[in-house]
Order: sequence, then C-alpha cells, then structure tokens
Amino acid sequence: MPNQPISGNDLARFSGPQSFMRLPEQADAAGLDVAFVGIPMDIGTSWRSGTRFGPKQVRQESAMIRPYNLQTGAAPFDSLNCADTGDIAINTFSLADSLKIIESHYDALLQHPVIPMGIGGDHALTLPILRAMARKHGPVALVHVDAHADVNDEMFGMRETHGTVFRRAHEEGLINPYKVWQIGLRGTGYSAEDFTEAAGWGFNQRLAPDLWHKSLTGLGQEIVAQIGDQPCYITYDIDSLDPAYAPGTGTPEIGGLTTPQAMELIRALRGLNVVGCDLVEVSPPYDPSGNTALTGANILYELLCILPGVTYR
Amino acid sequence: MPNQPISGNDLARFSGPQSFMRLPEQADAAGLDVAFVGIPMDIGTSWRSGTRFGPKQVRQESAMIRPYNLQTGAAPFDSLNCADTGDIAINTFSLADSLKIIESHYDALLQHPVIPMGIGGDHALTLPILRAMARKHGPVALVHVDAHADVNDEMFGMRETHGTVFRRAHEEGLINPYKVWQIGLRGTGYSAEDFTEAAGWGFNQRLAPDLWHKSLTGLGQEIVAQIGDQPCYITYDIDSLDPAYAPGTGTPEIGGLTTPQAMELIRALRGLNVVGCDLVEVSPPYDPSGNTALTGANILYELLCILPGVTYR
Amino acid sequence: MPNQPISGNDLARFSGPQSFMRLPEQADAAGLDVAFVGIPMDIGTSWRSGTRFGPKQVRQESAMIRPYNLQTGAAPFDSLNCADTGDIAINTFSLADSLKIIESHYDALLQHPVIPMGIGGDHALTLPILRAMARKHGPVALVHVDAHADVNDEMFGMRETHGTVFRRAHEEGLINPYKVWQIGLRGTGYSAEDFTEAAGWGFNQRLAPDLWHKSLTGLGQEIVAQIGDQPCYITYDIDSLDPAYAPGTGTPEIGGLTTPQAMELIRALRGLNVVGCDLVEVSPPYDPSGNTALTGANILYELLCILPGVTYR
Amino acid sequence: MPNQPISGNDLARFSGPQSFMRLPEQADAAGLDVAFVGIPMDIGTSWRSGTRFGPKQVRQESAMIRPYNLQTGAAPFDSLNCADTGDIAINTFSLADSLKIIESHYDALLQHPVIPMGIGGDHALTLPILRAMARKHGPVALVHVDAHADVNDEMFGMRETHGTVFRRAHEEGLINPYKVWQIGLRGTGYSAEDFTEAAGWGFNQRLAPDLWHKSLTGLGQEIVAQIGDQPCYITYDIDSLDPAYAPGTGTPEIGGLTTPQAMELIRALRGLNVVGCDLVEVSPPYDPSGNTALTGANILYELLCILPGVTYR
Amino acid sequence: MPNQPISGNDLARFSGPQSFMRLPEQADAAGLDVAFVGIPMDIGTSWRSGTRFGPKQVRQESAMIRPYNLQTGAAPFDSLNCADTGDIAINTFSLADSLKIIESHYDALLQHPVIPMGIGGDHALTLPILRAMARKHGPVALVHVDAHADVNDEMFGMRETHGTVFRRAHEEGLINPYKVWQIGLRGTGYSAEDFTEAAGWGFNQRLAPDLWHKSLTGLGQEIVAQIGDQPCYITYDIDSLDPAYAPGTGTPEIGGLTTPQAMELIRALRGLNVVGCDLVEVSPPYDPSGNTALTGANILYELLCILPGVTYR
Amino acid sequence: MPNQPISGNDLARFSGPQSFMRLPEQADAAGLDVAFVGIPMDIGTSWRSGTRFGPKQVRQESAMIRPYNLQTGAAPFDSLNCADTGDIAINTFSLADSLKIIESHYDALLQHPVIPMGIGGDHALTLPILRAMARKHGPVALVHVDAHADVNDEMFGMRETHGTVFRRAHEEGLINPYKVWQIGLRGTGYSAEDFTEAAGWGFNQRLAPDLWHKSLTGLGQEIVAQIGDQPCYITYDIDSLDPAYAPGTGTPEIGGLTTPQAMELIRALRGLNVVGCDLVEVSPPYDPSGNTALTGANILYELLCILPGVTYR
Repeated sequence: MPNQPISGNDLARFSGPQSFMRLPEQADAAGLDVAFVGIPMDIGTSWRSGTRFGPKQVRQESAMIRPYNLQTGAAPFDSLNCADTGDIAINTFSLADSLKIIESHYDALLQHPVIPMGIGGDHALTLPILRAMARKHGPVALVHVDAHADVNDEMFGMRETHGTVFRRAHEEGLINPYKVWQIGLRGTGYSAEDFTEAAGWGFNQRLAPDLWHKSLTGLGQEIVAQIGDQPCYITYDIDSLDPAYAPGTGTPEIGGLTTPQAMELIRALRGLNVVGCDLVEVSPPYDPSGNTALTGANILYELLCILPGVTYR
Repeated sequence: MPNQPISGNDLARFSGPQSFMRLPEQADAAGLDVAFVGIPMDIGTSWRSGTRFGPKQVRQESAMIRPYNLQTGAAPFDSLNCADTGDIAINTFSLADSLKIIESHYDALLQHPVIPMGIGGDHALTLPILRAMARKHGPVALVHVDAHADVNDEMFGMRETHGTVFRRAHEEGLINPYKVWQIGLRGTGYSAEDFTEAAGWGFNQRLAPDLWHKSLTGLGQEIVAQIGDQPCYITYDIDSLDPAYAPGTGTPEIGGLTTPQAMELIRALRGLNVVGCDLVEVSPPYDPSGNTALTGANILYELLCILPGVTYR
Repeated sequence: MPNQPISGNDLARFSGPQSFMRLPEQADAAGLDVAFVGIPMDIGTSWRSGTRFGPKQVRQESAMIRPYNLQTGAAPFDSLNCADTGDIAINTFSLADSLKIIESHYDALLQHPVIPMGIGGDHALTLPILRAMARKHGPVALVHVDAHADVNDEMFGMRETHGTVFRRAHEEGLINPYKVWQIGLRGTGYSAEDFTEAAGWGFNQRLAPDLWHKSLTGLGQEIVAQIGDQPCYITYDIDSLDPAYAPGTGTPEIGGLTTPQAMELIRALRGLNVVGCDLVEVSPPYDPSGNTALTGANILYELLCILPGVTYR
Repeated sequence: MPNQPISGNDLARFSGPQSFMRLPEQADAAGLDVAFVGIPMDIGTSWRSGTRFGPKQVRQESAMIRPYNLQTGAAPFDSLNCADTGDIAINTFSLADSLKIIESHYDALLQHPVIPMGIGGDHALTLPILRAMARKHGPVALVHVDAHADVNDEMFGMRETHGTVFRRAHEEGLINPYKVWQIGLRGTGYSAEDFTEAAGWGFNQRLAPDLWHKSLTGLGQEIVAQIGDQPCYITYDIDSLDPAYAPGTGTPEIGGLTTPQAMELIRALRGLNVVGCDLVEVSPPYDPSGNTALTGANILYELLCILPGVTYR
Repeated sequence: MPNQPISGNDLARFSGPQSFMRLPEQADAAGLDVAFVGIPMDIGTSWRSGTRFGPKQVRQESAMIRPYNLQTGAAPFDSLNCADTGDIAINTFSLADSLKIIESHYDALLQHPVIPMGIGGDHALTLPILRAMARKHGPVALVHVDAHADVNDEMFGMRETHGTVFRRAHEEGLINPYKVWQIGLRGTGYSAEDFTEAAGWGFNQRLAPDLWHKSLTGLGQEIVAQIGDQPCYITYDIDSLDPAYAPGTGTPEIGGLTTPQAMELIRALRGLNVVGCDLVEVSPPYDPSGNTALTGANILYELLCILPGVTYR
Repeated sequence: MPNQPISGNDLARFSGPQSFMRLPEQADAAGLDVAFVGIPMDIGTSWRSGTRFGPKQVRQESAMIRPYNLQTGAAPFDSLNCADTGDIAINTFSLADSLKIIESHYDALLQHPVIPMGIGGDHALTLPILRAMARKHGPVALVHVDAHADVNDEMFGMRETHGTVFRRAHEEGLINPYKVWQIGLRGTGYSAEDFTEAAGWGFNQRLAPDLWHKSLTGLGQEIVAQIGDQPCYITYDIDSLDPAYAPGTGTPEIGGLTTPQAMELIRALRGLNVVGCDLVEVSPPYDPSGNTALTGANILYELLCILPGVTYR
C-alpha cells in the first residue's frame, strides 16, 4: 500500500512531522511516484521578501488536508506513492549558485520515474527546474498561472531572476512555445510589448480581466485539448490569486483569480501528462494567519489529484 | 417600545456596553422575544484554537451595526424585544461538562417564549442546544451553513466534538433529517462516505462548487418551500465563508461562500419558523483586524431580520 | 517629456522617494497636469481611526505600479505631466480648522490648470475639496463610490464630519444632484430615509446587492452617457470594496464590491470630464500587510488612466 | 460587603461583563468609594491614533487580575466599594467639546465622595479632570508619570491638546506647582527650556536617565514625604514605560521605565491622600497581543491598592 | 560520535527538518541521553489559548541556535546523544485523557536511561510527567520557575489543570516539598494563602519583587547547595519572564524576570542531578514574530547545557 | 543656518517628507557635514529577511524625534549641516554587485568632508563602507555594537556576507585591530574559537553577560580613552539590543542590551573622532508596530549628537 498521510483522527493536526500533509519523509526519490520538495529562497524577489519561509508554512498548514477529495472523488493516495523529500540546500547568499544547485538536485530526482512537486520559494526556482525537465523530457508544454508573465529580458542587468524565467526558458528551448499557457496575467508594465512579445513566440495568454466573473472549467478543458499528451509542467504562482485570497505574497496585484476559479482550472486540467509542478511565492511574514499558505497547500493537493494515474472513487 | 440598541450618534461606537449591538443586558429571558447569548469556548476544536474569545470580539464589532436594514427594509427593533443575556459559564477544562451546562442553560432560557441567538464559540456547542430545542419543539428542521458536514462518528474516540454534532443530532432524533439542509460543504475527507452517508439519512446537501459564481437567493427560496412551517434552527459556521471573507477561524477551507451569497441566502430564508440560531467559530487571534467578527455580527443581524414577527418598513 | 516615475528596474522598489509611484516631488502645481496631494487626517472618523497614516502607506505601496496599463493600453505618463505635491498641513487637533486648510490649499492648487488627485485621510476631506471645485467649475457632477451615502445631517451635533459630506455639498450647491452617482451603498441605517431622501434630491444610487455577481462595465457606461461633459469629480472610498479586498479601513461593511468590479467601473468611466479625484479611508493599522494601501494606490492609478488627455497605445 | 469582581474560578476569564475587573456596573457614583470611568478618545494625539479603543482593551485584559495583591497584601475590595461607571460620551469630532463634556461628567461624579479612576484615552483628558478636581479640592498635588512633560504652550495653535495639559493646569491654578512630581521624562524637544521652564514653576522632575537601573521605592517615599496630606491626583501615562514594556501607545520614547519600577513607585506612594487617578495612552492597534492593555490594567489595580482606606491583610 | 544538529552553514536555517535544533528524529529513546519531546496542548489553559502550537514554533525558532555555548563554554553535543522524539499524541478533546496519555508516554520513555526535555503545551502537562518521574526516581526535587505557584485546589471543580499541578504533586508525594523551589512568583490571587500555604508544606518561594534589579547567580547557587544530589526536575514556565521578554503566552503577569536573569539562574543550576525538564506555555498566536518561541528554545538549550555529563571546553 | 528638521508643530508628524527626521533631501553630499544614506538590502541575511524595508521604516519613525536632546543638551542642528541623501541603488539580485555599488557610492560621498550615517539594510553593507573609509582615512578604529562578532571565514562558501564582515575588514587592513571594540556579543557558536580568534587579533570584546545589570557609561569612557583621536567608525547592529527592546530584526539573540544601556554607551562615546556610523538590521515585517525602527532612529540620533563639532547648550 502506498504511503499515507497521518490522519487527523490519529494524531492532532497541530502535532507530528512538519512534512507535506504529514507524509513520510525520505531523502531521495527511490520508489516514489510523487516527491514533494521544498525550495526555500527569496533572493530572487524584487519587492517584499519572506518566501524563504514559504515551504515551512505551506507544510504546517497542509496538516489541515485530509486524503480524499470530497469534491472530485480523487483519492491520490490509493494509487500513488508519495513522500516529502525535504528541502534543497540552496546558497542563500548567491542567486546564481542557488539556481545551479536546484538544477542538479532536480537532475538527481529525475533519475527516478517521479513527479516532483516543488514548494517555493520565489519564482526564480522554476528556471532550473525547467532545465532539468527539458533534459529528461525535451521541451515541455507549460501551464503557467500567475499575475505576471515573467518574460523580462533582465532586471538590474541580471538575466536570471523571478521576472525573467519564461523568456530564458523560451530562448533555451526548454518549453514548446505553442503549448505554453499563461493564465491570470494583469498588473502594469513598462511597454505595450511586455506581454505581446511572448504572444508572438506562440504563448497562449489569458489576461485576468477576460476571466473575471467566469468559471474556468472551460478554459481548463481547452488547454487539455490543445496540449494533448505532450509532457507538461505546471507552475502555479500564488499571486495569480487576488490578494484577498492570498495576501501573503511578495508582488501582489489586484484584480486576480478567486480560489474557486483556481480549483475549477486545476480540476479541468485532469488528463494532462503532467511531469512536474510547483507552487511558489508564498511569503509568510505578510500573512501571519497562515491562510495564504493553507491556500498554497490546497493548490498543491489539487494538482496532486490530477496527476496521471490517480484513482477516482 | 421594545429595547433599542444605543445609537452611534448618541454614544461613539467605540464606547459603551460590550453587549451585542449595545442592546440592554439582562440576566434571564423574561419579557424577551430574542435573547443573545455568548458561549465562549474552544475546547472542542481540532486545529487552531481561539474561539473562546469569539463572543467578546463579535460583540465589540457589532457596535458598527445600526438598527435598520437599509437593503431589505427590515426593522427588527420595531417589533421584537431583544437583549443580551450575557455568557454561559462553561467549564473550560471539560468539554463534556460544558456541553451539559449549555444544555441546562438553554432549557432554562426556553422556559420563556424566546428565540435564542447563540454567539460562539466552537461548533460543539450546537449539539446541546439542539437537545434543548428538541425537548421543547420536537425534532426541528435545520439549516446548517458550514464548510464541514460535522457528521463524524468520533474524533480521538470522543463522540461529542465540533466534528460530530449532526450525526449525534440525527441519532438522537433531535432533527428531522428530511428537513436538514447543509450548505457550503467542501474540503477534503477520509472516505467517499464522509458526506454521502448523511445524504442517505435524508440530509439535503449543497456542496460549495455547486454554488460558485451564483446567487443563493433561489436556494434560500427552495429551502423555505421545502421546510414549510416546521420549527427550524439555523446554525451558521463562519467557516462556510471563504477565508478571504472570514480569515479568523479555526478550520478554514478554501473555495467557500462570499458574504453577498451569505446575505442572499439568509434574506431568502425569510418566512421560516425560526426557533433559534447560532453563529460559531470566529477565532479572534487569527484576525486581529476584527473584520471576521464584524462579519459574524452582521450574519447574526441578518438572521435577526428574518425572525418571525419582524416588521419591514 | 513629462515627468516619469522611477522604474523598478532602475531603482529597487523598496528604495527611493516616498512619493506617489516615485514621481518627482514639487511644492506647487505649476506646470502640472496632475497633482497628487496627501491629506493625512483621521479626526473625522466615527469608528476605527488610523487614516492619518493612509497617505504614507498608499505612497509606499504605489512603488509596485509600473507606468503602462497592460490591461487597457493607457499610458498616462506619455501625455500628462504628473508630480507629487506632498501633504497638506492640517491641524490634527481641530476638524473644523483642517477643513478650512484643505479648502484654501485646493483653492491655491486650482489657480493652475491641474487635476488634483487627493490621497486620504478620512472622507471628511472631500467637502472642502468640493467647495474649492465648485468655486472654480460651478456645481460639479459627482461619482461617489462608497459603502455609505454620507448624507447624515449631523453627527454628535457636528455638521461637517465624514458622514455628512454629501448633504452639505448638496445644500451648498456644490454638486449637480441629478448628476450625482452613489455606487456600492449598503450596510445599515437609522431609518428608511437614510438613502431615499438623497434619491429625492436627484441622486442616482446603486446599492451593493444590485451589483453582486455582475460586471460593472455597463454601469460605468451608463454614468458616462448621463453625465456627459459636465465637469465631474470622482471620490472613491476604499470601503466601497468588500473588507475581503480592503480590510484596512475604518468603517468596513460586508457585501461590498470586488476589485475586478472597481476596475471595470473606473475603466468604463473613461470619457468623463474629470476635474479631480480622491481615494480615502485607507487605515494602515488595520492592514499591516499593506495590501489595502496597494489597492488604494491601484485605484488612483486607474483613475489617472481615464483622465482627459491620456494617451492609449 | 462591598462589590466584588467576578472570580476567574466562577466564570472563565474570557467570559462575562466587559467592566473593569468584571466589577458590577452602575451608571452613577452613588454609594461608591471608587468609580472606574472610561474616556475613549484619541483626537488629542499628535502621532499614532487608536487610544479611542483603550478603555475597551484595558477592561478586557483586566479580567486576568484577581482581587488580592499577593505581593503587597493589599485587599482593596475588602473595604472599598468599587464599580465601573461606563464610558463618558465624548464628541469624537471636537476635541474642545469633548474636554467640556469630560469636565461636566467629573463635576457630577464628584458630587459623590468617590475617587474616580479614569481609563483613557489620550492624555488631553486629564486637563478637564484637573479642573473638576480643583473645583472640589482646590489646587491639588500631582504625581505625573510620563515620558513627556506635556507643558507645551500650544500645538498647531491649539492650547488644549495632549501636549499642553500641565502648562494649562499650572496657569489655571489647578495644581500646586511645588507639589507636582513629573517622573520618567525623556525624549527630545525643541529647546533647552522644554523641561526647565516647568522646573522654574516649582515642578519636581525626575528624568529617566536618573532612574535607570534603580529601584524607585526611595523616590516614591520621597514624594509621599514631600506632598504630605494635600489632596493628590495621580496621572499615569503608559508611555512612561519603555516601549519594550508598553509597545501599544501613541508616542513611544525609548529608555523608559520598567514595570518593576512602575510597581515599586506606585507601592511606595501608599499614604498619599489620593483623590483621583487616571491611566492614559494605551493604543490597542499597536499591540494586538493585549499586553500593553494588561499592563495598564495592572497599573490601575496597583493604584487602587494604595488608595486611602484600603485594607492590608 | 553523538548526534549533531545540522549546521546553519551546511543548510540554511530556514530549511531542513522541523526538529529541535534540527537534531535527528527518532521514535523512541533507545540509545539517547536526551530526548526532546513535544506535548502540544492548550486545553488546560484558563485565559488565552494557543499553546497547542507551541512545540511547532519552538522547534522552528530553535534553528537559530548553534551547538556551542559561547558564553559558558558548554558543548552539550560533544558528550550527550540527543534526538527529537516527536510529539505525544494527546486527545485534544479531553484534558483528563491527555494527562493519562502523557504519563504513559513518559513511563515508556523512562524505560531508557534518558533525560526527557518536554516542549509544551500548557503547564497541566507537568503533573503526569512528575507522576512518571516519581515512579522511577521516587519523590524528586523541583525547580519551578513561573509567575504562578499553580497550587490551586481546583478550578471549576477540576483537580487537574494548569493551575493545580503542584498541589497535586505534593499531595501525591511526587516531590520532596523541602526541595521545591518556586522562582518568580507574582501577580494577584484570591487570598493571602495562595502562596503561603505551599510555603507551609516546605516549598521555598522567591517572589519576583525580591528578584528585581538583581543577578540570579547567587540564587541558583543557593538552590544547588540546598538540593544536593537528589534527582531534580526543572519546569520552566515562559510566563516567569516579563511579558516584555515573552509576550506570546497565555497568562502573562507584569513585573517578571528578564532573560539575563533566566540565563543566570539556569547557568548557576549546573551541578544539579537533573532528571528531566520542560518548557511550557509558549502561545504562538500572541507573538507572530516568533521571538517568544526563540526565547523558549534558548531556555531549553541552556537547560541542556547544565545536564549531568555535559562537556565544557 | 544649517538645515533643520521640519517641526512637529509646523507639520503633523504623520505628514511630510519621508526623509530622516524630515530633513531636507539632496542627491549628493555637497555642503553637508552629515549625510544620512539609506542602504536597503536583505540579501546578505542568513535567517529572517525583511531588512530591505529597514530604511523606509526607520525614516518614517524618525518623524517622532525633535531636534534638541533634552537628556544631554546636544543640539546637533545648531552647528552641523545635515541632509538625507536618499538610497543607494543596490542590485537586489546580487550581493556581490551590491557590495561594489555601496563601496563606489561611499567613495563618491567621501570626496566631500562629510560624515555618512548609513541606514540599513543587513550588516553585509558595512564591509564596503569600511573599504571606502580606509581608503580615505587609513585603518580606522571601530566601535561595533552587536550580538554577533561577524568574524566567520565564510558562509556557504561565500566570503562576503553579514556574518563575515569583520574578519574581511581585519584581513584587508581596513581596521586597527587593537582599536576594535565589540560590545554585546552573545548567543551560540560552532566552536570555542568563534570569538577568541578575533581577540587574538587584538579585538577588545565585551560579552553581554559581563554587561547585564550595569550602566555602560564607564565602558564608553574606557573606549574613548583607549581609541583616542584615531578616526573611528561606529557600526550599530540593532540586534545588540535584547529582542524585548528590538523585536524586529533578522537574527535575534536573547540576553541583550537594554535601550538605557545603548544610550549610556553612545553618550559616553562623545569625544571620539567619529568619521562614519551605521545602524543596521531593522526588519520591519517582524515588528509592524514600528517600535524597533523608532529605536533604530533614536540610536542614529544619539550617534548624531556625539559627532565632532556638535553644540551642547
């Protein structure tokens, strides 16, 4: 039988290991279908810091989540063997080094047939992950839910920050641009080309105003149909949500998604050939209640529920 | 003339008694149509504590509310004599004893022809209230707005906690299962039966995803039509709301109701033969702004506005 | 070339001047098309205080905003010369004196052909602004987005507070009552006439329940059509938003607008002959995260984007 | 038997009335030896606001205090009949009016042979109290514990604010300047005369640096000896304490007293002919933990313990 | 070589396991000299709750602590094999059951020659620990640092709560009353006997006022001399500290110890035959900064440094 | 007449420019005796981040400070021309680059005969400052008040972080090791040599336990006598203070200095030939009250008061 989370009826939720959903911990990915991995960093952020504590708080709040998805019938722990493989030992004094460490760590993880679920940390971490992903799978399809397109060329002369990830990924051929979906974009920019240039590369973009007041189920289905069975990576920036729903983040933008929309979107993505996911940009100092981290934990859980091979009861 | 709240133009809102809406206080229910009663406890909670301070903060924030409902025309203080009857003296070291104390207290209250409006406190308090209600009225209809169905059989071997209330109420015949409505259910569980078993008893359940993006006016009307004039109890768990709207609670679940939906639902319930209400699970330490308590106070006010006998101008 | 905000790629957002969007500062309005002006006060508030720190926090959070509106194409700094003209030196020990100081300050500002964008501060500040506006433009049209109609006759015997502004403005002929729009009204009151009396003067009122679950684009267009080219003042109370979206305010009311609705409404108001705006009632102590102030800053930015003469790319 | 506080063993501390120490409430001072009275205002403050909520939070936290002073043997409720007489209905829109209202209220209270214990509120409230005190008792001796001397002549042209109280009191002959003690003064000023002028009137001043690292028992004894049996008023500004001990206040100054020093000082003042006291400047928004209010409540309790007529066991 | 904490130079402090000082985790005490054990509960508290999250936050903040005590030369990990044995699975709905579970858990731990270091949780947990301790060691000497003597007979009729621990321990013969030291007592009580009765049993009590402004080194030495080599248990309630130093606790009392005093006292206790320790009453919701938990973690570390067998370099 | 801060009686403290003490702002150091300079960064921190917002919050809170030091008689603005020269434009994505930028910026500042007062930011910033200082003045004497000696050789292989500053400074000959004073050291380390090695270089170290309960006036005088008239740099880490006095910092250590001690020490340093100062490690997210920043602002002010050439009245 696969690993199971500790039940809240066996051990009070405020007790026990600080792993994701209180799953067993193991150092590597041997024998796992799914590996949760913390990536505690905030040195790639341009405004508020604090995401270095994101993995800790997301794991703490994940103790609220029970194994079975009452709303969709998903029972991920019936069929997938999951564990928390701990944190990557980044170098907090060097963003450049940290990105290399993350890439190596993912290369090692991907020696196993495992789906890594990253818990951030700032969004800069997704670039080295995509490098490792592309090395294994070739260019991947990408579902990128975010307030920001993160396609700057550079910031303060640096080419690898939390705002340049997807331009670099495109330049390096890590992603199939025609199978990139950017959902929830909004906010302000420096020129009209901030988004449109990426559209020219083939990226499919859905701005937040086009999504207001609507169910995202249809959009999710459209994405599944278009991407087909190409290996797909899903990167979920918590700031795609409106600050009302996720106040604890580093670069909030008003007018964002709601959690019902987030769940509709993810649930409709079932059927994608997901090879990895991450949830980034939870910044605990800006939400001491823990609710933003709880939301992040739930998003990771909903992503888990749509992975290939999950049983539905 | 019935009791009136102190006007914010007579005494600054940050002044005066700490009673609900700054109504007069009296120790018993003699002469009252409506009795507000605080039930400060959190020893029945399974995750975050703090609801023991719920009644204090809900009352403090209720000073914002003026007597007349501008949106619906309800003028509850024109016709109903209301007072705040203070707090029940629970035993904070024993959940079992506290439930007995609450039951006795309600038995005494219900010697009078009064509608009690409970201010919690964790949801465990609703079980003894239903026992007292059923003793007076027979099995009651129930409108239960909550993220959780609270139909566990036991938690840590205990049969009376904030997660087992409505299974016990059903087993003990306190409620008419065909006239039970559970609204806003969501989150995760331990098995597919977590909700469906109660549906088998006759409970009418509306999961949150079925309510997203919709007005709840129609649902409220459907409930009124189905319940008819059977004596009805309304229990409102603040965690039915999305954590964006009610961050200060003990077991938040994302994807919940909005306050517009909450108000649509309650307003549409006008016409029910309401015999009692409660508002539970406001946990002040998790929302120092007081806004969750303010929301709780407004829900109590909206419930007051639909009680039998309220004048509408 | 007009003044430009400092770019977040030239100077980290957490650095540099504490002016609105890090625009240049100048003491008067000479040569400006738009003058941001802080009005730090809270002595006109009836419940929670703290708005005296509103201008500071709104400016701090405005450093997140980039110059170009990606969602609408507006490029306000292409054509309008904007600056931050600092704070008005109110008398914090006298509301009456402070209102006179504000009026004089605006009279001086309006010697220039400038559009003032006020950053509050409690809503009492809008009355002296309207006096100065009417002195220059005659009675103005008014778009007033707020949870409260602010048409009390007096509060504690005082005729000039944050709750009496628009009755005074009407009595003094500062506004054209048939071209007044009050959007988002809700909450509770003292009598059925709280809102309806103002409707009798000609005010167009849209209560929050009529707006729930809806796009406000149509409403914005209706307002533009009705007001036509009459000089128009826009006053935006942050408490028009639901407390989920703007928790840091002094008199929150549940069931309010969402930020998508706020942006839809403002964007649809493009075409009005706007002669001045303000954003009021951000109270920093009630939202240490800064997100309410960020929301306020964005509302000011969206208002800036619809001013006469803004270039759209 | 005199009024007794509700015991924490009879009713859980988080329950029951929101009166000081959960004493009985009564509207006037008839039959009382000691009357607690809330004075909720912050419109006299020059920096952070929020003290309008001071009385509420001080009362809430006072529920921690038990009747008997284990450290000194004082049993104030054995001999003194105490009650909470509620809040004064100030006019929150006018500082000048509010001061008049406070003065009238105290005039009425002092018709009775009662010692009023004021719970502020900003320090401006002490001026009208001293006017009422002097009307009854003639010029009083004064023990004034504070970071600030509050002897400005005016602030923004206003002569009655929280920074001008004791100059006014001196000018009006409300106090005997040779029997005024100002303890804990520190911080910065506008000129060398900020303190020294008052010394010239006869005020006895003890600056904080002279008190660091020392017991204040001796100072208290010195004060008692010097004042003798002249009617004495004690005004205690919470900002006399270091911000480490009282972070929730409006104009904190570093290098202040400790709570041990505060208690040593007060306990040593036993024997003074105290005719009234107040505790001012607790600002709840700046200490959500409630600990500053708890400290304020304890200071009031320690003051109560040294009133004339208290029994020591 | 004994277990070592993970170094902050090998893995960033915000990373890695959530064990005490990031020590290895193991389920039982086999092979250990020292076992850290979390006891997450708050159902024994009479005022603010929240200590159920104490063990989590104490462990998180303990990541700041490095292995070598620079101030004293203690190198506990040179000689003692330490691990974190996780949390005790208490029953959060029953205080009585939880106390039994703790006792059984300690009985099992004490099958091994290990010194348990408990991380609370509310102080009620010390009673079952003392029962297990006495079963193994006979009546123990006790160093009890606390604001409260915790010698009530009952609270709400309950004989086992956080306020009755040491009366029960005395009645049951778990402690040698002549070798009990209660340090830091203060606050208020219900009668003059609140403390003095225990003094009559033989308890040595030092009230806080006797300790103000003083080094506690001498007191520590006096205790060591008096207790000699009798097996000794040390229970450290974080509320012994002044709320300035430890704001995040459930029943704070002003006028407490400073952290220098706490460290002086503990360091001077070196030489005692310590058989167990606990640190209780850290309540995270009341100090989101984490500093109270950091203080608690340091107190545990200082206690570790004085255990028998620790190497000093 | 030199530049003067804006008076709190001319412009309410919550108004006006966000410069240090509301001094005039100018871009360079021409004509200045003292230049305040913000250095907003946190990428050199090893535990909690957030110091990037330190300069903003320190400046905001500095509005509380009036020009004249009532406790010492210092009137710094009588004789010294001071201004705020804004923030250094660091590269938030590269610690190494940022240190170079700071060094260049200081080189440029020091072209003028100005004393720079740095407002941090994390302590890594002091290394490039010392490089610039030594280039101008030769090896400087150093007064370093801190919980940590910051003499690590490397952290994660990096040689320039907030923990290695003074080893690098020593190796590079930037400081005269016999005239280095490290005050307030405490906490834990990795070996006995953590402090002692630096003592071997000549550093004078005073550990916190040696300072508890004492006035630091004598120590300050000793330092002045020993350093004599050698150019001296003072670096003040806010974490030298106990977390009770400065909770908002990144690597707090219990058992630290009090603010009275901090002021005694600084005041006694009068007479040193100070050529520059900094105040570092204020982290706003960990103290939303602003009191830690207020303390930092006061420390800067006290340092200003002892600069060469200050007038004492």
